[in-house]
Amino acid sequence: MQVEQILETCLYVDDLEAAEEFYRRVLGLTAFSRVKGRHVFFRCGQGVFLLFNPARTRQPEGDLPVPTHGAQGPGHVSFAMPPADIPAWREHLRQQAVPIEAEITWPSGGFSLYFRDPAGNSVELATPQTWG
Amino acid sequence: MQVEQILETCLYVDDLEAAEEFYRRVLGLTAFSRVKGRHVFFRCGQGVFLLFNPARTRQPEGDLPVPTHGAQGPGHVSFAMPPADIPAWREHLRQQAVPIEAEITWPSGGFSLYFRDPAGNSVELATPQTWG
Repeated sequence: MQVEQILETCLYVDDLEAAEEFYRRVLGLTAFSRVKGRHVFFRCGQGVFLLFNPARTRQPEGDLPVPTHGAQGPGHVSFAMPPADIPAWREHLRQQAVPIEAEITWPSGGFSLYFRDPAGNSVELATPQTWG
Repeated sequence: MQVEQILETCLYVDDLEAAEEFYRRVLGLTAFSRVKGRHVFFRCGQGVFLLFNPARTRQPEGDLPVPTHGAQGPGHVSFAMPPADIPAWREHLRQQAVPIEAEITWPSGGFSLYFRDPAGNSVELATPQTWG
Protein backbone atom coordinates (compact mmCIF):
# COMPACT_ATOMS: atom_id res chain seq x y z
CA MET A 1 0.00 0.00 0.00
CA GLN A 2 1.30 3.42 -0.89
CA VAL A 3 -0.10 6.91 -0.46
CA GLU A 4 0.11 8.98 -3.62
CA GLN A 5 -1.08 12.44 -2.69
CA ILE A 6 -1.17 14.70 0.34
CA LEU A 7 -4.70 15.90 1.00
CA GLU A 8 -4.37 18.09 4.12
CA THR A 9 -1.50 20.34 5.16
CA CYS A 10 -1.89 21.95 8.59
CA LEU A 11 -0.46 24.78 10.63
CA TYR A 12 -1.37 25.98 14.10
CA VAL A 13 -2.10 29.59 14.96
CA ASP A 14 -3.23 31.36 18.10
CA ASP A 15 -5.25 34.08 16.33
CA LEU A 16 -7.38 32.60 13.56
CA GLU A 17 -8.77 35.96 12.39
CA ALA A 18 -5.31 37.44 11.98
CA ALA A 19 -4.13 34.32 10.20
CA GLU A 20 -7.10 34.21 7.82
CA GLU A 21 -6.57 37.86 6.95
CA PHE A 22 -2.88 37.21 6.31
CA TYR A 23 -3.31 34.14 4.12
CA ARG A 24 -6.05 35.91 2.14
CA ARG A 25 -4.24 39.22 1.69
CA VAL A 26 -0.69 37.92 1.24
CA LEU A 27 -1.13 34.46 -0.30
CA GLY A 28 -4.45 35.03 -2.08
CA LEU A 29 -6.21 32.10 -0.38
CA THR A 30 -9.96 32.22 0.21
CA ALA A 31 -11.40 30.38 3.20
CA PHE A 32 -14.22 27.98 2.41
CA SER A 33 -14.92 26.82 5.95
CA ARG A 34 -14.41 28.20 9.42
CA VAL A 35 -15.50 27.49 12.97
CA LYS A 36 -14.87 30.53 15.10
CA GLY A 37 -12.05 29.93 17.55
CA ARG A 38 -11.29 26.43 16.18
CA HIS A 39 -10.21 26.47 12.54
CA VAL A 40 -10.11 28.12 9.11
CA PHE A 41 -9.84 25.97 5.98
CA PHE A 42 -8.57 26.94 2.51
CA ARG A 43 -8.40 25.02 -0.76
CA CYS A 44 -5.05 25.03 -2.52
CA GLY A 45 -4.46 22.99 -5.65
CA GLN A 46 -5.42 19.36 -5.17
CA GLY A 47 -5.35 19.68 -1.39
CA VAL A 48 -6.55 21.78 1.49
CA PHE A 49 -4.57 24.03 3.81
CA LEU A 50 -5.89 23.94 7.35
CA LEU A 51 -5.24 26.40 10.17
CA PHE A 52 -6.13 25.20 13.64
CA ASN A 53 -6.16 26.77 17.08
CA PRO A 54 -4.33 24.09 19.07
CA ALA A 55 -6.05 25.16 22.31
CA ARG A 56 -9.28 23.88 20.75
CA THR A 57 -8.14 20.91 18.70
CA ARG A 58 -6.29 19.35 21.62
CA GLN A 59 -9.72 18.75 23.21
CA PRO A 60 -12.41 16.40 21.92
CA GLU A 61 -15.30 18.40 20.47
CA GLY A 62 -18.55 17.75 18.64
CA ASP A 63 -20.43 14.59 17.80
CA LEU A 64 -17.81 12.96 15.59
CA PRO A 65 -14.81 11.15 17.15
CA VAL A 66 -12.25 13.37 15.43
CA PRO A 67 -8.82 12.60 16.94
CA THR A 68 -7.22 15.39 18.90
CA HIS A 69 -4.05 17.11 17.74
CA GLY A 70 -2.40 20.50 18.20
CA ALA A 71 1.20 21.64 18.12
CA GLN A 72 2.89 24.69 19.59
CA GLY A 73 5.75 26.67 18.23
CA PRO A 74 6.60 27.66 14.68
CA GLY A 75 5.67 25.19 11.96
CA HIS A 76 6.52 25.40 8.29
CA VAL A 77 4.72 25.30 4.96
CA SER A 78 5.88 25.92 1.45
CA PHE A 79 3.84 26.91 -1.59
CA ALA A 80 4.95 26.46 -5.19
CA MET A 81 6.02 29.60 -7.04
CA PRO A 82 6.69 29.64 -10.82
CA PRO A 83 10.19 31.02 -11.41
CA ALA A 84 8.80 33.79 -13.62
CA ASP A 85 6.76 35.08 -10.66
CA ILE A 86 9.71 35.67 -8.31
CA PRO A 87 9.97 39.43 -8.98
CA ALA A 88 6.20 39.88 -8.67
CA TRP A 89 6.07 38.02 -5.37
CA ARG A 90 8.99 40.02 -4.00
CA GLU A 91 7.20 43.24 -4.92
CA HIS A 92 3.86 41.97 -3.58
CA LEU A 93 5.42 41.12 -0.21
CA ARG A 94 6.98 44.59 -0.09
CA GLN A 95 3.63 46.22 -0.86
CA GLN A 96 1.93 44.12 1.81
CA ALA A 97 4.60 45.10 4.35
CA VAL A 98 5.66 41.49 4.89
CA PRO A 99 9.36 41.34 5.68
CA ILE A 100 11.33 38.76 3.71
CA GLU A 101 13.29 36.78 6.28
CA ALA A 102 15.51 35.00 3.78
CA GLU A 103 16.07 34.39 0.09
CA ILE A 104 17.89 31.21 -0.82
CA THR A 105 19.18 29.90 -4.12
CA TRP A 106 19.53 26.15 -3.68
CA PRO A 107 22.27 23.92 -5.13
CA SER A 108 19.46 22.30 -7.18
CA GLY A 109 18.86 25.61 -8.93
CA GLY A 110 15.64 26.23 -7.05
CA PHE A 111 14.85 29.47 -5.28
CA SER A 112 12.97 30.21 -2.06
CA LEU A 113 11.51 33.28 -0.38
CA TYR A 114 10.78 33.01 3.34
CA PHE A 115 8.60 35.10 5.59
CA ARG A 116 6.48 34.64 8.74
CA ASP A 117 2.74 34.45 9.27
CA PRO A 118 1.26 36.39 12.23
CA ALA A 119 1.63 33.31 14.47
CA GLY A 120 5.33 32.99 13.66
CA ASN A 121 5.06 30.03 11.30
CA SER A 122 7.73 29.93 8.60
CA VAL A 123 6.06 30.39 5.21
CA GLU A 124 8.00 29.72 2.03
CA LEU A 125 7.44 30.35 -1.64
CA ALA A 126 9.67 28.00 -3.60
CA THR A 127 10.17 27.19 -7.23
CA PRO A 128 9.45 23.50 -7.88
CA GLN A 129 13.03 23.16 -9.17
CA THR A 130 14.00 23.30 -5.49
CA TRP A 131 12.98 19.62 -5.36
CA GLY A 132 14.28 18.70 -8.80
CA MET B 1 -0.93 37.20 -6.28
CA GLN B 2 -2.22 33.79 -5.42
CA VAL B 3 -0.52 30.53 -4.47
CA GLU B 4 -1.85 27.57 -6.42
CA GLN B 5 -0.15 24.52 -4.98
CA ILE B 6 1.31 23.35 -1.70
CA LEU B 7 4.89 22.18 -2.17
CA GLU B 8 5.98 21.16 1.34
CA THR B 9 3.96 19.56 4.11
CA CYS B 10 5.80 19.12 7.42
CA LEU B 11 5.51 17.21 10.64
CA TYR B 12 7.83 17.13 13.63
CA VAL B 13 9.11 13.97 15.26
CA ASP B 14 11.52 13.23 18.06
CA ASP B 15 12.83 9.96 16.60
CA LEU B 16 13.56 10.29 12.89
CA GLU B 17 14.61 6.66 12.42
CA ALA B 18 11.36 5.37 13.95
CA ALA B 19 9.34 7.84 11.88
CA GLU B 20 11.10 6.95 8.63
CA GLU B 21 10.54 3.25 9.27
CA PHE B 22 6.85 3.91 9.99
CA TYR B 23 6.16 6.08 6.95
CA ARG B 24 7.96 3.57 4.73
CA ARG B 25 6.37 0.43 6.15
CA VAL B 26 2.87 1.76 6.76
CA LEU B 27 2.41 4.50 4.16
CA GLY B 28 4.74 3.15 1.48
CA LEU B 29 6.84 6.34 1.28
CA THR B 30 10.51 6.16 0.31
CA ALA B 31 12.89 8.76 1.70
CA PHE B 32 14.96 10.57 -0.91
CA SER B 33 16.96 12.76 1.48
CA ARG B 34 17.99 12.60 5.10
CA VAL B 35 20.36 14.35 7.46
CA LYS B 36 20.87 12.21 10.53
CA GLY B 37 19.24 13.79 13.56
CA ARG B 38 17.75 16.68 11.57
CA HIS B 39 15.30 15.55 8.89
CA VAL B 40 13.94 12.89 6.54
CA PHE B 41 12.26 13.93 3.28
CA PHE B 42 9.79 11.99 1.12
CA ARG B 43 8.19 12.75 -2.23
CA CYS B 44 4.42 12.41 -2.38
CA GLY B 45 2.47 13.35 -5.48
CA GLN B 46 3.29 16.88 -6.62
CA GLY B 47 4.78 17.81 -3.26
CA VAL B 48 7.18 16.67 -0.60
CA PHE B 49 6.46 15.43 2.90
CA LEU B 50 9.09 16.58 5.39
CA LEU B 51 9.81 15.19 8.85
CA PHE B 52 11.94 17.38 11.06
CA ASN B 53 13.46 17.01 14.50
CA PRO B 54 12.42 20.32 16.10
CA ALA B 55 15.35 20.26 18.51
CA ARG B 56 17.59 20.72 15.46
CA THR B 57 15.50 22.94 13.20
CA ARG B 58 14.91 25.50 15.95
CA GLN B 59 18.60 26.32 15.73
CA PRO B 60 20.37 27.92 12.77
CA GLU B 61 22.56 25.38 11.00
CA GLY B 62 24.75 25.17 7.94
CA ASP B 63 25.91 27.75 5.44
CA LEU B 64 22.51 28.78 4.06
CA PRO B 65 20.28 31.19 6.03
CA VAL B 66 17.40 28.71 6.30
CA PRO B 67 14.83 30.16 8.74
CA THR B 68 14.35 28.26 11.97
CA HIS B 69 11.12 26.48 12.81
CA GLY B 70 10.03 23.56 14.96
CA ALA B 71 6.79 22.72 16.72
CA GLN B 72 6.07 20.45 19.64
CA GLY B 73 3.04 18.32 20.28
CA PRO B 74 0.89 16.30 17.90
CA GLY B 75 0.48 17.69 14.40
CA HIS B 76 -1.76 16.36 11.67
CA VAL B 77 -1.46 15.26 8.07
CA SER B 78 -3.91 13.61 5.72
CA PHE B 79 -3.19 11.55 2.61
CA ALA B 80 -5.68 10.89 -0.15
CA MET B 81 -7.17 7.40 -0.32
CA PRO B 82 -9.31 6.20 -3.24
CA PRO B 83 -12.67 4.96 -1.90
CA ALA B 84 -12.08 1.54 -3.46
CA ASP B 85 -8.93 1.12 -1.33
CA ILE B 86 -10.64 1.53 2.06
CA PRO B 87 -10.87 -2.21 2.81
CA ALA B 88 -7.28 -2.82 1.70
CA TRP B 89 -5.96 0.02 3.87
CA ARG B 90 -7.93 -1.23 6.87
CA GLU B 91 -6.43 -4.70 6.40
CA HIS B 92 -2.95 -3.30 5.79
CA LEU B 93 -3.07 -1.30 9.03
CA ARG B 94 -4.19 -4.42 10.88
CA GLN B 95 -1.34 -6.44 9.40
CA GLN B 96 1.15 -3.71 10.32
CA ALA B 97 -0.20 -3.64 13.91
CA VAL B 98 -1.20 0.02 13.61
CA PRO B 99 -4.29 0.67 15.74
CA ILE B 100 -7.05 2.61 14.00
CA GLU B 101 -7.95 5.44 16.36
CA ALA B 102 -11.11 6.49 14.53
CA GLU B 103 -13.14 5.89 11.40
CA ILE B 104 -15.39 8.74 10.33
CA THR B 105 -18.00 9.00 7.59
CA TRP B 106 -18.42 12.69 6.90
CA PRO B 107 -21.64 14.53 6.05
CA SER B 108 -20.02 15.20 2.64
CA GLY B 109 -19.95 11.48 1.96
CA GLY B 110 -16.20 11.29 2.49
CA PHE B 111 -14.55 8.72 4.72
CA SER B 112 -11.47 8.94 6.96
CA LEU B 113 -9.27 6.48 8.80
CA TYR B 114 -7.11 7.88 11.60
CA PHE B 115 -4.06 6.49 13.33
CA ARG B 116 -0.87 7.78 15.02
CA ASP B 117 2.73 7.86 13.91
CA PRO B 118 5.41 6.90 16.47
CA ALA B 119 5.76 10.55 17.54
CA GLY B 120 2.04 10.86 18.23
CA ASN B 121 1.12 12.86 15.15
CA SER B 122 -2.40 12.27 13.88
CA VAL B 123 -2.23 10.63 10.45
CA GLU B 124 -5.34 10.37 8.32
CA LEU B 125 -6.24 8.55 5.13
CA ALA B 126 -9.23 10.29 3.60
CA THR B 127 -11.22 9.91 0.42
CA PRO B 128 -11.08 13.13 -1.63
CA GLN B 129 -14.89 13.29 -1.40
CA THR B 130 -14.28 14.42 2.21
CA TRP B 131 -13.57 17.85 0.73
CA GLY B 132 -16.19 17.72 -2.02
